[in-house]
Amino acid sequence: MKNFIFDLIINEAWKYQFLTYPNPAVGAAVIVNNRLFVGVHKKAGEPHAEVNALWNAFRAFNNAPELERSHDIHEFLLQNHNGFFNDANVYVTLEPCAHSGKTPSCANLLKHLKPKSVTIGWPDPIIGHGGGGEILKNAGIKVNILENKRCYDLIEPFVKWQKRFVFYKLALTMNGSITGGYISSDESLNWVHKIRDKIDLLVIGGNTVRIDRPTLDARRVGGRAPDVLIYSKNDGIDRNIPLFNVPKRKVFVEDSLDKINNYNFIMIEGGERLYNEIKNLVDWKVFIISPKFANRFNFRSEDEFEILHTMSGDDLIVFGR
Amino acid sequence: MKNFIFDLIINEAWKYQFLTYPNPAVGAAVIVNNRLFVGVHKKAGEPHAEVNALWNAFRAFNNAPELERSHDIHEFLLQNHNGFFNDANVYVTLEPCAHSGKTPSCANLLKHLKPKSVTIGWPDPIIGHGGGGEILKNAGIKVNILENKRCYDLIEPFVKWQKRFVFYKLALTMNGSITGGYISSDESLNWVHKIRDKIDLLVIGGNTVRIDRPTLDARRVGGRAPDVLIYSKNDGIDRNIPLFNVPKRKVFVEDSLDKINNYNFIMIEGGERLYNEIKNLVDWKVFIISPKFANRFNFRSEDEFEILHTMSGDDLIVFGR
Repeated sequence: MKNFIFDLIINEAWKYQFLTYPNPAVGAAVIVNNRLFVGVHKKAGEPHAEVNALWNAFRAFNNAPELERSHDIHEFLLQNHNGFFNDANVYVTLEPCAHSGKTPSCANLLKHLKPKSVTIGWPDPIIGHGGGGEILKNAGIKVNILENKRCYDLIEPFVKWQKRFVFYKLALTMNGSITGGYISSDESLNWVHKIRDKIDLLVIGGNTVRIDRPTLDARRVGGRAPDVLIYSKNDGIDRNIPLFNVPKRKVFVEDSLDKINNYNFIMIEGGERLYNEIKNLVDWKVFIISPKFANRFNFRSEDEFEILHTMSGDDLIVFGR
Repeated sequence: MKNFIFDLIINEAWKYQFLTYPNPAVGAAVIVNNRLFVGVHKKAGEPHAEVNALWNAFRAFNNAPELERSHDIHEFLLQNHNGFFNDANVYVTLEPCAHSGKTPSCANLLKHLKPKSVTIGWPDPIIGHGGGGEILKNAGIKVNILENKRCYDLIEPFVKWQKRFVFYKLALTMNGSITGGYISSDESLNWVHKIRDKIDLLVIGGNTVRIDRPTLDARRVGGRAPDVLIYSKNDGIDRNIPLFNVPKRKVFVEDSLDKINNYNFIMIEGGERLYNEIKNLVDWKVFIISPKFANRFNFRSEDEFEILHTMSGDDLIVFGR
């Protein structure tokens, strides 16, 4: 039978796609006392998805202090769980981590909380990092590993970040208009700034820089600005454009894309010409589609891709590969 | 705290949006023995969402025969539940029906199964049909009514079907191309045929009929063909076009849209001209977006709408209002 819980936790995890860099996007759920609790990993250094789900569940039925640090939550649960999770079923899109990094090992935590079962969407893809499932099995917990392809899609950026992950971001209307001021909603612009705060390098076409004179920082979310590569066949870029005046940022103006090789997480923002030049070279494409039609210049391209995920708020976000 | 289960059951119910006509699209879940079971209403006359969820749950832990008729499932559960659901929590996007129609009353069934709680996303909107929640409360079941706006959106067509619900269906590429043969995937074309099997009237522009010479039936799913209104300022429609030769169908060729007033559930399929003429008159717009770019004629319009829901498979489906 279809596992609906994975649909739910995969969708929740996608809301933090890219924002967990350099960690994977992961979603988890716990069912205990016939109630469902969800947790996602939101940011590197913060609690992992399964820890958030366990903590949400525990606090709904038990007195517990306000804790935020993953280490504190692990410790508190280990000392106070009192068998609370023994009838629980746990679901997580990625195999719980066996190793201790910025946060303690989730497999170790689960081993001691000893739920009835742990269902895992995809095994840990990093060589030497696996073994979480084995730890649980050896502790007598029933472990199911699903190899759910959608759980893999969720962590594909993470897998590629080990070397390099590049995606193209394009905002357009429902009928493919791309020009004429801000197309996207405030919500989407904030999301783009959150992503800019995470990426190592932002690549942009020289024409877009000349016309839009952008800042390309993460000011909407108080974030750091990524390095910028302005890809332009000929220089002629005005150094008074705001993006040159952002502190702690390197800006390159080059006629090749070779700089990409020095970075791990790269977003490309550009127009039609750049898209058509490199559409086959990027790992993913991310489209922000605003729910309107506009009679302006329409984006011209011949291209085709697979829809990995879509989510909607004020705009529609489509992740394609 | 956010109720994630509603996200899940709302999404599942949308998969059968329009296909439940004249019934509402409804999703439900039951958590029992720390496992989650989901049910949706798929087709008028078939079991309601909560009955499907309860039945899925019951059969996972108990011996039970294969039953399909709603009446048989109600009877079997009433006689054999043996307190199985007493610790269960039930979630349903719409208030369980108090009345008996094609199927027995769900509120009555739940009253006897007596779960710990029933959480309801939206009260029954039909005057004289409510009271399901009261029946449950009076039986000592904890009832929460959320008034979740997304649960209302799900049943807006149902509410309007009482008089008339009209939506525009448009297939396009990511950059707004609409011409050049079939744009949509097989999966989407099958879905459109399933919808054609349900609607009362299909409205189409005269130009589209002249150029595409369509059949406009539901042959891909062995369904019935809706009546057709060809909206054309001047007739000149070739009566040898296949749509005229479909049995048990009325075809109107008219220069007004007044015929719409004789029907309850109307889909409009047409091109740019028809869209722009009536974009402000329809209740909803449904876009089937194929994940590709194509350099063909681009759809021209100025329009704006709210995204109600989106779902993706081979194509992207966007419900807008």
